[in-house]
Amino acid sequence: MRTTWRRSMCYWFRSPEVSIALLAHRCLHRAGSGNGVSGQEHATQSRDAPSSNQRLESRRPPSKPVFLRDVSLSRVEGIRVGHVQSLSLVPGKVHEMRTLSLKPLLFEIPGFLSEDECRVVMQLAQLKGLMESQLMVQEDQEELARELNLSPEEIFNLLDNNQDGQLQIHEILTHSRVRDGIWLTPENLREIYAGLNVDKDGNGLLSLEEFRLLSNDAFQRFLLQRGVERSQLVRNSRHTWLYQGKGAHQVLQDIKARVTRLTRLPPTLVDLSEPLQVVCYQEGGHYHAHHDSGPVYPETACTHTRLAANTSTPFETSCRYITVLFYLNSVDGGGETAFPVADNRTYDEVSLIQNDVDLLDTRRNCDKSNLRVKPAKGTAVFWYNYLSDGKGWVGEQDEYALHGGCMVTRGTKWVANKWINIDPDYQRQAHYQQLVSQQPEDEDDGLTLSPDMQGTDIHQDL
Amino acid sequence: MRTTWRRSMCYWFRSPEVSIALLAHRCLHRAGSGNGVSGQEHATQSRDAPSSNQRLESRRPPSKPVFLRDVSLSRVEGIRVGHVQSLSLVPGKVHEMRTLSLKPLLFEIPGFLSEDECRVVMQLAQLKGLMESQLMVQEDQEELARELNLSPEEIFNLLDNNQDGQLQIHEILTHSRVRDGIWLTPENLREIYAGLNVDKDGNGLLSLEEFRLLSNDAFQRFLLQRGVERSQLVRNSRHTWLYQGKGAHQVLQDIKARVTRLTRLPPTLVDLSEPLQVVCYQEGGHYHAHHDSGPVYPETACTHTRLAANTSTPFETSCRYITVLFYLNSVDGGGETAFPVADNRTYDEVSLIQNDVDLLDTRRNCDKSNLRVKPAKGTAVFWYNYLSDGKGWVGEQDEYALHGGCMVTRGTKWVANKWINIDPDYQRQAHYQQLVSQQPEDEDDGLTLSPDMQGTDIHQDL
Repeated sequence: MRTTWRRSMCYWFRSPEVSIALLAHRCLHRAGSGNGVSGQEHATQSRDAPSSNQRLESRRPPSKPVFLRDVSLSRVEGIRVGHVQSLSLVPGKVHEMRTLSLKPLLFEIPGFLSEDECRVVMQLAQLKGLMESQLMVQEDQEELARELNLSPEEIFNLLDNNQDGQLQIHEILTHSRVRDGIWLTPENLREIYAGLNVDKDGNGLLSLEEFRLLSNDAFQRFLLQRGVERSQLVRNSRHTWLYQGKGAHQVLQDIKARVTRLTRLPPTLVDLSEPLQVVCYQEGGHYHAHHDSGPVYPETACTHTRLAANTSTPFETSCRYITVLFYLNSVDGGGETAFPVADNRTYDEVSLIQNDVDLLDTRRNCDKSNLRVKPAKGTAVFWYNYLSDGKGWVGEQDEYALHGGCMVTRGTKWVANKWINIDPDYQRQAHYQQLVSQQPEDEDDGLTLSPDMQGTDIHQDL
Repeated sequence: MRTTWRRSMCYWFRSPEVSIALLAHRCLHRAGSGNGVSGQEHATQSRDAPSSNQRLESRRPPSKPVFLRDVSLSRVEGIRVGHVQSLSLVPGKVHEMRTLSLKPLLFEIPGFLSEDECRVVMQLAQLKGLMESQLMVQEDQEELARELNLSPEEIFNLLDNNQDGQLQIHEILTHSRVRDGIWLTPENLREIYAGLNVDKDGNGLLSLEEFRLLSNDAFQRFLLQRGVERSQLVRNSRHTWLYQGKGAHQVLQDIKARVTRLTRLPPTLVDLSEPLQVVCYQEGGHYHAHHDSGPVYPETACTHTRLAANTSTPFETSCRYITVLFYLNSVDGGGETAFPVADNRTYDEVSLIQNDVDLLDTRRNCDKSNLRVKPAKGTAVFWYNYLSDGKGWVGEQDEYALHGGCMVTRGTKWVANKWINIDPDYQRQAHYQQLVSQQPEDEDDGLTLSPDMQGTDIHQDL
């Protein structure tokens, strides 16, 4: 079955936690085969999809060398939920690692950081200064959105999941949860309907005629007039980045070494990953459920290898193979890390958002998540955002890795994130590593891998 | 927490697919900590449980040598449901293996056997002759049951899962599904209540007073008077065993070699496993949901290594690490292999049997199973009945491997089973292999590993 690339259907989709690649793919998928297709066919179709867009072509110029892969990424075995394994991470201490879920492959290690280490990391973050974390719509997405020009009928048809000729609240929210960084609740949407007077018959459903009144401009004007509160953002927190290379505080270098040991990955891969992110949530803070990294299709670039990829594709994701999340304090109330669909039998995106229960909303519905991890000072949790490819490298995105930070109901919450970035395309990863290893010797903070990234201890081996 | 060994509470439990070890363990568990304990704690408690039974002691006499393990069992990676990997099993042909579930780790390989191979296996089975498969209560279980002498109050309390002082139909069936090889349905139980006039107030619930009237003898007398039909058996089929060692038909040897390649296990382990079982289900045939092999606790012996274990424990299971199931024909109607709880988020034994829906009943409720595999001539499915121990050997039982054969509604169904037997206790497996390798050279069919087993091609290496 041949499907055509229907990028132009993506007009309505602008959720920051769902990458443009996924959205474009989703459009393609809807256009090609309707609903009810399993994840597996999903992925297969995407790889087969012909690209009519010049910018998506020739991902790898023929001049580049071909790297033979002589490394296999080890993956920690989960065995089963509740399985406990002993780890030797620091001299004279045994850590216990418990499997929390298999989908995603998720572990908890109490006491991974000492009290002193937690304190130092929080102090270093405060010294450096924290900035608001609000995600803004990415420029690439804006750019792509401008090019799109679909008729309201086409958009309506795409959103109308059950094809009943009416848009329900959840059909709108599934594809358009976030508008300009604002998280929409069913109530928000009803308020917008009322404010713009689009739902003439007031039944909470939009006919095509009613939908025509809900133009993008009208939407934005309404939001501007109304004003936005912090609690309405996708992410209500402040954060900073701490470099962990040579010359960094010993605690930061120790943490990096311990993460390398924990994940059993080649040190270079950890060295070349993003710095440590430290996040502070005040009372009322939250981070709605999201993926730390998006799906990777052939036309998707990884942020960290992009400099080596020499590609102009508008599809990009952070390629965070692993997330290690450290709790730097024990929170007085709330602030759990929620995994709404952990170990669910199936991943059904549509059922995540019902008309009145939005499982992605971590201000309201954390209690309905399959799994919640309570913050405890020094505990680390880590999970894989990608599956294995079965051949020792990074495979497809693990959709079950969806997670969020529940609202802090009392006190403050401090966490740190260590992401390990690996390109699922081995050639690109290898080429990138070759490139950074050829850079002239530099200050430790001199090599910027991404707006906030830094590479240190560069070796030629993978 | 110390718990005492309450073997005597197991009076009521006599389901053949649930081994005595599990039942005894379950009693222990109930006695020690009540309900709601996760699988992980479950297992831990069992291993810590002190044994007051002389027969359970000193599993390994001190005189035996200690074997150093220099082999790691490879396990096929599932990646995700729907993942397809290409296999090279026979020259000039590529097989595709699709992941059907991760819990249990389950794969399907179309065309694993050729049409000719299927025909030969069915013919060899018919030449050898098939016998009724009805499972009878094992002697060990009978023996243990005789020793038990609990008061009705104690039994009542044990069965009363929600502790409401009344026994519901499903509370009886959960622990006493099979009586003397007969599969009890909710209707059967209501009929028995009526026949024995135990449910005086006819509300379908038994009070302690009503329960006292339902003595074991009364139960059996009623069943004898009433007579039993084949459809009421746990398993309604005929089967035989085909040896696969030297001198066996080439097709049988080829299949064994292909299974070794498929499972990536040391050939000796496959050689020392049970012969090929061929099963024929006539129209109306079925096999209610069961585990091919039970849990293994320190006091549990494996059937195949028992001769080397020199133990008199009454707890025994077949230690079938892997089941490879071959469909020898395509069935005209029904006959699917059902996995009621495949990839369920949790394994909750209690919820398998509701008052009127018994998920284990493959004559009625296959449509409610999470996963069903349709028989297709030549297709093989295979799954692991045990998890990994995380160190390259066999770990705990995988309860999700529960499966059954749905009723054949039209035509006949022919399947074959190849089980690979491995003792989760490496020392016992190694000792057993050492022992069989020291046997004098014999006819291929001379070494009987179990009533129906045979060892061939014995090597000293694992």
